[in-house]
Amino acid sequence: MTNYIFSETSLRNFTRRVFLAIGCPPADADLATDVLLQADLRGVDSHGVARLSGYVRLWEKERINTRPDIRVVHETPTTATVNGDRGLGLVVAPFAMKLAIEKAKTYGSGWVSVKNSNHFGIAGYHSLMAVREDMIGLSMTNASPLVAPTYSNERLLGTNPICYAFPAGKNAPVVVDMATAAAANGKLEIAQRTGSEIPSGWVQDKQGNDSTDPNELKVGGALLPLGSDKAHGSHKGYGLGAAVDILSAILSGANYGPWVPPFVAFLDPPADPVGEGIGHFLGAMRVDGFRPVGEYKHHMDNWIDRFSKAKTVDPAKKVIIPGQPELEAEAERRKTGIPLVQAVADDLNQLADKLAVERLF
Amino acid sequence: MTNYIFSETSLRNFTRRVFLAIGCPPADADLATDVLLQADLRGVDSHGVARLSGYVRLWEKERINTRPDIRVVHETPTTATVNGDRGLGLVVAPFAMKLAIEKAKTYGSGWVSVKNSNHFGIAGYHSLMAVREDMIGLSMTNASPLVAPTYSNERLLGTNPICYAFPAGKNAPVVVDMATAAAANGKLEIAQRTGSEIPSGWVQDKQGNDSTDPNELKVGGALLPLGSDKAHGSHKGYGLGAAVDILSAILSGANYGPWVPPFVAFLDPPADPVGEGIGHFLGAMRVDGFRPVGEYKHHMDNWIDRFSKAKTVDPAKKVIIPGQPELEAEAERRKTGIPLVQAVADDLNQLADKLAVERLF
Repeated sequence: MTNYIFSETSLRNFTRRVFLAIGCPPADADLATDVLLQADLRGVDSHGVARLSGYVRLWEKERINTRPDIRVVHETPTTATVNGDRGLGLVVAPFAMKLAIEKAKTYGSGWVSVKNSNHFGIAGYHSLMAVREDMIGLSMTNASPLVAPTYSNERLLGTNPICYAFPAGKNAPVVVDMATAAAANGKLEIAQRTGSEIPSGWVQDKQGNDSTDPNELKVGGALLPLGSDKAHGSHKGYGLGAAVDILSAILSGANYGPWVPPFVAFLDPPADPVGEGIGHFLGAMRVDGFRPVGEYKHHMDNWIDRFSKAKTVDPAKKVIIPGQPELEAEAERRKTGIPLVQAVADDLNQLADKLAVERLF
Repeated sequence: MTNYIFSETSLRNFTRRVFLAIGCPPADADLATDVLLQADLRGVDSHGVARLSGYVRLWEKERINTRPDIRVVHETPTTATVNGDRGLGLVVAPFAMKLAIEKAKTYGSGWVSVKNSNHFGIAGYHSLMAVREDMIGLSMTNASPLVAPTYSNERLLGTNPICYAFPAGKNAPVVVDMATAAAANGKLEIAQRTGSEIPSGWVQDKQGNDSTDPNELKVGGALLPLGSDKAHGSHKGYGLGAAVDILSAILSGANYGPWVPPFVAFLDPPADPVGEGIGHFLGAMRVDGFRPVGEYKHHMDNWIDRFSKAKTVDPAKKVIIPGQPELEAEAERRKTGIPLVQAVADDLNQLADKLAVERLF
C-alpha cells in the first residue's frame, strides 16, 4: 500500500475548499475542517478526511444541509434539546457542546441531546472542548445499525461511541474514547485491504455464527458488542450501546436502533422513520463544581503517574493512559505530516475535480 | 448445595435487627435493609444479605460508622460533593441520589460525587430512585482493586460498576447495570464452590497469563477488564473502569486505583491513603428537561418492543432487555421466596448469636 504524506496545512486548506464548495458558511467550513483534521492528526484515520467524499455524497442526496438553522427546541437551566436541521454533525455537535459548556458555567453542569444531525466525526473533539474550560466532557452519538445485540442476528445498534474526557494538571487529559462494539468497522476495512483474517469475536455471519472473515458485514453479518459473547460480557457492550442510543435519540427525538439512517449515500434511509436524523448527547461538568481545581488536578496527575508506572507483563508494552496514543500520534504527525493511503488521496483529487476546486496534489 | 428458602418479610426483619444491633438509627436500618433485600429479590445474590456479616466485620474494625454525619461539603446549583463520614454506602448513596434528584427538580439535572463511603450495594437501587421521578438515573462506584489494566499484572481498579436506568411507559424501565470487568467476582465464587473451571478471558494469573482457575485471585492473579484482551477491546473496559474511578474518587476526594480500601475486614486499608474511604458518583436528569415525558415514553416503549422482537440465533434465547432478567427474578421471588445457600444461611445465624439478636431460623 502506497502512502502519501501531506502537511497539516495543505490538508486543512483542501478540506476547507471542499466544505466551502458545497455551500458551508466560512465559519462552519473552518469548524468542520478542524474536526476532521483533529482525527487525522490523532491517528484516527477512519474519521478524518477519508470521510470527506462521503459527506459530499450525502449532501448531493440532500441528506446533509450545509446552511442549517441549528436551534434549541427545548430547555431547562442545565438541559436542552437541539435540532441540527440536517446539518453536518461536525458543526452541530460543537454547537451543542458550546451550549452545554455555557450552562455549566452558570449552573455547574450542562447536558444537550441532539436530533436531526449527521455523523459528528471523532467524539474526542467535542469532549475536549469542555476540558479546555476545566470541565469534564462527555460525548456520544448513535450510528447506523451494524451491531447485533447478544443472542440476535439482526443489526440493531451502531458502534455507538462514548467519550469521557478529564482535565489533568501537568499531564495531558485522560480521554476515554471508545466504540461500544468489540472492534470498530475501520479495523475490518484494514483486514479487507490486506486480505487477512480477523480475530474470532469481532463479527458474526448472517446466521449468527462467529466468523473470521472481514467481509462478513457485506453479506448480512454483524459486528459483535464489546465483550464478544455472553460468557465474556457482550450483554454489557450491548447495554452500553443501548444507553448511548437512548440518550442520543429517545431523549432528543432522533431515529434510534434499526431506524438510524445509514452513513453511506448509496443506501436509503428507512422509509418509516421514528425521528429526525441521527442523535448525539453532549455534556459538561465543571470540576470546581465538586472540589477546587488544584486539588482535583493534583490527584488526577497522581492517578496518571501511578497507572503509567504499573507493572507490565511484557516490558515492550506499557500500560496505556487513555488518550495518550492519540496524543503521541498528534505530536508525530505535526512533525512529519499526515499519511493517506493512495485510495484516499486519489479519491480526494476526484472529489476536487467534481466540485471544481483545486486538487490536493 | 442445599438451598434454604426465606420469605421476604423474614429476611427483611432479620436484616433490620442486625443493622439496629450495630447502632444504625431506625430509618437508616430500614433503608440499608431495603437496599440489600432489593438485591436478593432481583437475583443479585452476591450483593444481598450474603454481605451482611461482612458489613458487621467492617463495623467491628471501626471502618464503618453506623451514626454518620453525612454532609454536603461543596456545591453548585447542579453539582455537589458529599462526605459520607464512613457511613454504610447503603445509606450514603441514597442520601446523595436524593440530593441529585432535588437539584434536577429545580435545574433539570443533578450530579453528586461522594467520598468517605463504603460498599453501596447494587447500583440499580440508586438509579431506580431517579426513575420513579421520571428522571434518568446514573450510579457508579469504585471498589477495591481486583482488575488489572490492559498489559499489566497489577490489580489497580475495582470491578467499578456503571448503572444507567431509563424510565419507560407501559414497559418496565431499562436498567443497564454492569461491572466494567469481563466477569464479576461472584461468578468466580460460584465456580470455586462447584469446583469447575472458568472460561478463558475472565482472569489472569500472577504473571499475567490467561487462566481458567477460579482461585487465581487468591494467589496474586487479577480479573480482566470487559473485553478480556487487547484484541477484543480490554482497553475499553479498562477505560470505562478508569472513568468510574475518576468520577467517583478524583472528583470527590475518595481513594482511587490501588489505594481503594478492601471490602474485607481481614485486609487492612493501605497505610498511605490518597483520600477518604471509597467514592461514588450519582446523577439524575429530568426526562422533561429534553422533551415531553409522554413523547419520550412512547419512543422508549417502541425501542423496547422492537428489541424484544429481534430475530434470534437460538429460539430458546430471546434478546435481553437490560433490567428484565432482574425484574423476572423479582416477580418469581416475591411469590416463592428468596433462596439462600446453606453457608450463607448458617453465617446469618452465627451473626445473630454474636450480636444477640433473634436468629433467622
